[in-house]
Amino acid sequence: DVAKDVDESLIEKFMSEVDNIQIQENLRSLTKVPHMATTAGDEETVQIMLKRWQDPETGLDKAWREEYWVYLSFPDKNNPNTVTVVSPTNTVLHTIREKEKPYTPDQSDPEVVQPYAAYSPAGHVKGKLVYANQGKPSDYSELNKTVDLRGTIAITKYGGAGRSAKAINAAPYGVVGVLVYTDPLDMNDGLMSDANETYPHSWYMPPSGVERGSYNIDFGDLLTPHLAAKEETYRINATDITGIPPIPTQPIGFEDAYRLICELGGEPAPDAWQGGFNCTYNFGGPGFKPTSSFTNSDVKLDIYNYEEVKPSSNVMGFIRGSVEPDRYVIYGNHRDSWVHGAIDPSSGTSVMLEITRVLGKMVKQGTWRPRRSIIFGSWGAEEFGLIGSAEYTEQYFAALSERSVAYINVDIAVFGKKLHTAPVKAPGHEKSVYDNWLQYTNKTSPTHGLIPRMGYLTGAGSDYAPFSHYLGITSMDMSYTYDKTKTNARIYPAYHTAYDTFDYASKYIDPGFVGHQAVARTAGNVLIRLADSLILPLNCADYAESLEEYLSTALNLYEQKLKTMNISMEPLKHAVTSFRAAVSNLEKVIQSPDLANETPLKVRWINDQLMLLDRAFLDPLAFPDKYGFRHVIWASSSAGKQTFPGLADAYANAESSGQASDWDKVHYHLSVLSQAILGAASTLTDDMQTQTWRK
Amino acid sequence: DVAKDVDESLIEKFMSEVDNIQIQENLRSLTKVPHMATTAGDEETVQIMLKRWQDPETGLDKAWREEYWVYLSFPDKNNPNTVTVVSPTNTVLHTIREKEKPYTPDQSDPEVVQPYAAYSPAGHVKGKLVYANQGKPSDYSELNKTVDLRGTIAITKYGGAGRSAKAINAAPYGVVGVLVYTDPLDMNDGLMSDANETYPHSWYMPPSGVERGSYNIDFGDLLTPHLAAKEETYRINATDITGIPPIPTQPIGFEDAYRLICELGGEPAPDAWQGGFNCTYNFGGPGFKPTSSFTNSDVKLDIYNYEEVKPSSNVMGFIRGSVEPDRYVIYGNHRDSWVHGAIDPSSGTSVMLEITRVLGKMVKQGTWRPRRSIIFGSWGAEEFGLIGSAEYTEQYFAALSERSVAYINVDIAVFGKKLHTAPVKAPGHEKSVYDNWLQYTNKTSPTHGLIPRMGYLTGAGSDYAPFSHYLGITSMDMSYTYDKTKTNARIYPAYHTAYDTFDYASKYIDPGFVGHQAVARTAGNVLIRLADSLILPLNCADYAESLEEYLSTALNLYEQKLKTMNISMEPLKHAVTSFRAAVSNLEKVIQSPDLANETPLKVRWINDQLMLLDRAFLDPLAFPDKYGFRHVIWASSSAGKQTFPGLADAYANAESSGQASDWDKVHYHLSVLSQAILGAASTLTDDMQTQTWRK
Ligand SMILES: [Ca+2]
Ligand SMILES: [Ca+2]
Ligand SMILES: [Zn+2]
Ligand SMILES: [Zn+2]
Ligand SMILES: [Zn+2]
Ligand SMILES: [Zn+2]
Repeated sequence: DVAKDVDESLIEKFMSEVDNIQIQENLRSLTKVPHMATTAGDEETVQIMLKRWQDPETGLDKAWREEYWVYLSFPDKNNPNTVTVVSPTNTVLHTIREKEKPYTPDQSDPEVVQPYAAYSPAGHVKGKLVYANQGKPSDYSELNKTVDLRGTIAITKYGGAGRSAKAINAAPYGVVGVLVYTDPLDMNDGLMSDANETYPHSWYMPPSGVERGSYNIDFGDLLTPHLAAKEETYRINATDITGIPPIPTQPIGFEDAYRLICELGGEPAPDAWQGGFNCTYNFGGPGFKPTSSFTNSDVKLDIYNYEEVKPSSNVMGFIRGSVEPDRYVIYGNHRDSWVHGAIDPSSGTSVMLEITRVLGKMVKQGTWRPRRSIIFGSWGAEEFGLIGSAEYTEQYFAALSERSVAYINVDIAVFGKKLHTAPVKAPGHEKSVYDNWLQYTNKTSPTHGLIPRMGYLTGAGSDYAPFSHYLGITSMDMSYTYDKTKTNARIYPAYHTAYDTFDYASKYIDPGFVGHQAVARTAGNVLIRLADSLILPLNCADYAESLEEYLSTALNLYEQKLKTMNISMEPLKHAVTSFRAAVSNLEKVIQSPDLANETPLKVRWINDQLMLLDRAFLDPLAFPDKYGFRHVIWASSSAGKQTFPGLADAYANAESSGQASDWDKVHYHLSVLSQAILGAASTLTDDMQTQTWRK
Repeated sequence: DVAKDVDESLIEKFMSEVDNIQIQENLRSLTKVPHMATTAGDEETVQIMLKRWQDPETGLDKAWREEYWVYLSFPDKNNPNTVTVVSPTNTVLHTIREKEKPYTPDQSDPEVVQPYAAYSPAGHVKGKLVYANQGKPSDYSELNKTVDLRGTIAITKYGGAGRSAKAINAAPYGVVGVLVYTDPLDMNDGLMSDANETYPHSWYMPPSGVERGSYNIDFGDLLTPHLAAKEETYRINATDITGIPPIPTQPIGFEDAYRLICELGGEPAPDAWQGGFNCTYNFGGPGFKPTSSFTNSDVKLDIYNYEEVKPSSNVMGFIRGSVEPDRYVIYGNHRDSWVHGAIDPSSGTSVMLEITRVLGKMVKQGTWRPRRSIIFGSWGAEEFGLIGSAEYTEQYFAALSERSVAYINVDIAVFGKKLHTAPVKAPGHEKSVYDNWLQYTNKTSPTHGLIPRMGYLTGAGSDYAPFSHYLGITSMDMSYTYDKTKTNARIYPAYHTAYDTFDYASKYIDPGFVGHQAVARTAGNVLIRLADSLILPLNCADYAESLEEYLSTALNLYEQKLKTMNISMEPLKHAVTSFRAAVSNLEKVIQSPDLANETPLKVRWINDQLMLLDRAFLDPLAFPDKYGFRHVIWASSSAGKQTFPGLADAYANAESSGQASDWDKVHYHLSVLSQAILGAASTLTDDMQTQTWRK
C-alpha cells in the first residue's frame, strides 16, 4: 500500500520482542576470542554474522560478504616491541611490560595482540626522556623553551591531540621517539591500584592496561584514497601516506609511565601538565634526575611493526522494501576489535543482531516488510581507520548518494551504567526512550534543552564518518552513556585494552544488559520509522535552527574584524535567511492536512527533498587538506568554535598568520558556505527560486 | 494523470504549428543591432526574451532574469588595437585594417566591436615576423629548428590548436606577440575575392573578415571557479588566471595576412604548412625577404584590451510540470553574440522562441501541461567562455543534480544549406526528422549507421559543456549542418565576423528558414518526449555499446604494452561486462508488458535510474588539470583516440615520458574508470549488487 504510514502497533511489537538475554548471548558469542581485523577471530565473527543473517527463520532477505584489500599495520609476534631504560653502559635497567596482566583467562589468550601504535614505523631509537604533556603543538613549543629536544624520547598522555599528532608534532623538534600512556587522572579518577580499586574490582583501567589504537589522521584505506580497495585497484606508494607517525611510537601502561615520569629531572612542568601520579611531573633534564637509579640513562624503543595489505570483509545484509525498494535506510557497526572488544564494538553488534533477529522474523513470517529497503553493514577494519565503511562508500558512491535516506551507527552501544543516573526512563516505564528523546532533544519541542542536547557528528570517531562527511548522508550515532558529571573518565576505562571483555561488560558496564536493550529498542525504533514512515521523520526546521546558531556565533566572533578587512558577511546572512524561508514553506506542505490526499509522487517529492538536503551541502573541493570531508556544515574543525568549520579554521589561520592570502581564504570559505546554503535552500523549492536568489 | 504517456497527436499539433516565418521574424528582431555580452544591444535581447516569455497569450508560467558579475575583456573604443609594419626608422609601412569592410549597413554600425582576442593582455611589442602554421607545440618546435624565435612575432592560422594555445605554446620560445588569421584554404575553399567570390556574393568570408573569439581554455567566469559569480562572491586574483595568452595576441583578416605571409623570407615552410595564398609560405628570415618593401621591418602590435567585471544576464523561463514538477527538462542557448550574431547564436534563439511560442500558447490555453517541468535558459556571455550557463550550474548545482532529466542545447541551429544535400528528409515529407533520426542513429536500430552516427559531446563548444561535464546531465547539442564532403569550410565562413547578419543568414544559410523550422520541430519533438514520456526516452543500451566500443579500442591500443608494465585491464573488462548485464536487466523491465500495470513509484524508479545514469560517471577529482570536467567517459581528451579520455591522455603522457610515475597515472585512471563504470552499473540494480561486485 503506497499510502501506508508507519504502524505504531508494529513498533510496540518490535519493542516488546527485543530481548536483553538474547543481546547478552550475542555478546558472549561475539567475544569468545580476540577478533582483530583480518585474524582468524575476525573470520569467526564473519561466520556468525552470515549465519545469523542467512537464517531461514530469523534472517534477512539476503546477506553476503564484501572484501577489500586493505593496508594494515601489526606488531611482530616473533619480535615484540620493547621499551627499555638503558644505562650509559647499555645495561637494561627497566623493561616496559610486554602485555597486559591477566585477571581472567581472556587476557592470557595467545591471540591478544601486544599493545602497539598501528602505523608507527618500525625502528630502533634511544634518547633522554622528556615529558611533553598531551603532545600538542603548544606543548612541544613550551617544552622546547627549557629543553633541547633534539635526540630525545617524549612521553605523552592520551587526550588533547590525536594519536598520531603526538608524534607528528614532535618530529620537527628533533624528538626521535614517542611514548603514549593513559594518565589515571584522565581515566581512573586518580585510582591506580589493582589490589582493590581497578578492574577486576571496578570498571577502572588496571595499571598495566594500554589503549591500543590506529595512529593515523585520514580515514579509509591509506593506499587507495577515493578508490575502493579491490585487489587490482591502483595503490599509492606507502611513502606517500600522510598523517601517520614519522618516528617510532609506542603506547604503554600507566604503571610503567609512573616509573618513568616520576624519575624525570629538570624543571617542574606547568600545573596544567600535572596528572594523577603522586609526584611532580618534571619536564626532564632531559632525562632522569640525578637522584634516580635511572640517572644518565636513555629510554630505548625497539619497534618491529610491519605493514601488510590483507583482505578484510564487510558483511552486508539486505531487506528489500515493498513500496520504495530504491530507497535505503542503512544501519551499521564495525565488527573488528583490538582485542575481545566486548564494548567496542561488540555491544553494538549484539544490539544490531537482536534488531535483525526481531525484524528478520517478521519478514520471514510475512507479517512485515518495510516500505523502504534496509541495508545492514557489519564493517571490517574500523579500528585501523574506518576502513570497511569508507571503502564501501567509495565503491557504491553513486547508488548510495542517490538512494540513501539515512545512516544509523551503533558502535559502542553502552558506555557505562555504574555511574549513570538515568534522566531518560528505560523502556517499559512511563515513556519510551524514543518519546523522551523526541520530547527533550527535538528542537521544535517546547521542552527542548531540558536534557543535554544532541551533539553534531562533526568528527570521525566511528563508521558514520564516511556516510556523513564523504557522502552527505544524514547520519546518527547512538549510545547510552554515563553521567559525565560523576567521573573524569573520557570514555569507559577498558577502551581498546585487553580488559574490554564479556566479563567486564556484564559486570561493570551493563549488568543484565538492560542498557543494551534500551539502545536496541531506540535504534530499532528509529530504523523502523525511517523505513516505514510515509513522510520521512527528518526535521528540516532543526537544520535551519542549527544554521542560525552557527551564523549567530560566526557573526559574534568574526563580523567586526572581517568588516575591517572589507569582507562582508551579508551573503551568509542572506543565505541562512533564505534557507529558513524555504524550510518554512516545506514545513507548511508537510504539516498540511491535504497531505493525506496527495499522490504517491507528491509524497516522494517531499521525501526526496528531505533525503537529499544533506547532500546539497557537499563540496568536494572545500577542504583539500581534510581527506574525506566534503560537508561544509559538519566537517571537522580544529578551531574549537561551534560554528561553520571551514570558516572557523580559515579565520583562526588568518588571524594567526595575518597574511592577506589567508584572509582571502576566509572570504573564499564564506562564498563556499553561502553558495552551499543557498543551493540547499533551492532544493527545497520546485523551481529553485528562493528569496535571496531573486535579488 | 500519473500514468499518461506522451501524446502523439499533441506532437503532431506542435509540429504543424512550428512556423518558418515566425522564426525568420524572431531572427530579424534579435539581430537588429550587435549584441555582445553586457552591451546595450545585449540588454535589448534580454527585453525581447522577457517580453516573449512573459506574454499572457504565448508565454511561459514564469520568466525572470539572473545576473552574474563576470570578468570580461574588451578592446578600447578610444584606442583601437593596431598592428603595423614599421621600418627600422620607425616609418609605418602598412597598417592592418581596423574593422571589417562594410557591404551592408550592418557592418557600419558603430557598435560593431573591433576584431580582437578576448583575454589577450594589453601591450606593445614588436619584432621580426615568423610564420608558425597553426601554433601547435609541434609547429613551434619545428620552426625553432631553423629560426631563433626570441623577440619575434608569430603569425598563425586558425585550426589545429585552441585560440589561446597559439600564444601559450609560443611564449616559451621567446615569441613576444601572436597574430591569428583564417586561411582561405581552411574556410573559403581557396576563394579570396570579394569582387565576385565571397560574401556578399556567397557564404564565403570576405578578405577583411576576422573571426573574433575568447582566447581562454577553461569555461565559466575566470575569477570565480566553482562559485557562482555573484556580486560579493570571492574572486581569485586576475594574475592567477591560467589558460589565457601570456603575450599580446590579435586576430586579423586574410587580406592583411596575405600581405604579411607572402613577403616573408627564410626557408619555405613544410608542405603541410602551406595554405590558400598564391605564394610560398616561408618560415620568415625571421622577418621579411630582402626583395620585399618590408625588408628589415618589424611587425608591431599595440593592444589596448582591458578587463572588467560586469553584470551579465541569463533569462530563465519555466513551465511547471503537472505530474512530476520536481523533474526538469532543460533547454537552452546563449543570447550574446560577437557582433550581430545571426547564426551564432540567434538562429538557435529564434528556434527556441518559436518552440516556446507554440508550447506557451498551449499552456496558456490550458490544452497542455508537461508531465515534468521545463526550464528554458537564454544564457549570457557564452562567447567569453560559456559563462552564463557555467555560473548557473555552479549556483544551482545541488538542485540541478537531483532533478535534471536532460539538457538540450541548440546554439547554431543551421550551419549551412547551400552545400547541404539532405540525407534526412525534411518534416512534412515521408518521415519526420525525428523518425529518421530514430531509425538511422539509434544504436539499437537495425539500420543504425546508414547515415553518419551521432557524435559524442566530449568538447566544450557551447553551453552543453557545464551541464554534461560538470553536472553529468545527459545532454544533446543539435543543429542542421552542410555536407562536409563538399567543402573544406570547418564552420560557416561568417562565424564570429561582422558578416554573420540577417542578410547573410537569409540569403546563404537558410533561405525561407525551412532548415530552422526542421530544427525547431526536431528539438521541440525531443523536448516534448523528454517532458511527457512515461518512461524517459533515454537508451541505456546505447551507453553500454559506447562503453564496449571504447573498451575495444582501449584494449587494441593499450593492453599489450600495459601487460608488460604489470598493469591489468581485466578490472575494466569486468566493469564493462557488468554494466552491460545491468543494462540488459533494466531493459527487460522497461520492455516488459507488465510495465503498463506498474505503480507510479515503480515508473519513477526506472526513470530515476535512467536520469541519474550519467551522474554516476562523475568524479570531481579525476581531472585536476581540466577545469569543469568531471565525467570520466565524456571528458575532453588531447590524445585523439576514440576511447576513455583519462586513460588515453594518461597513456599518451606515459608513453612520451616513459616515467614510472606516469605509468602509475595510467593505472590510477584505469581504477577510476573501472570504479565509475561498476558504480554506474550498481545504480541499475535495486541492491547495488552486480555480477562483478559479487566476485
Ligand atoms: Ca579506498
Ligand atoms: Ca564561477
Ligand atoms: Zn568502535
Ligand atoms: Zn575502537
Ligand atoms: Zn554560439
Ligand atoms: Zn560563438
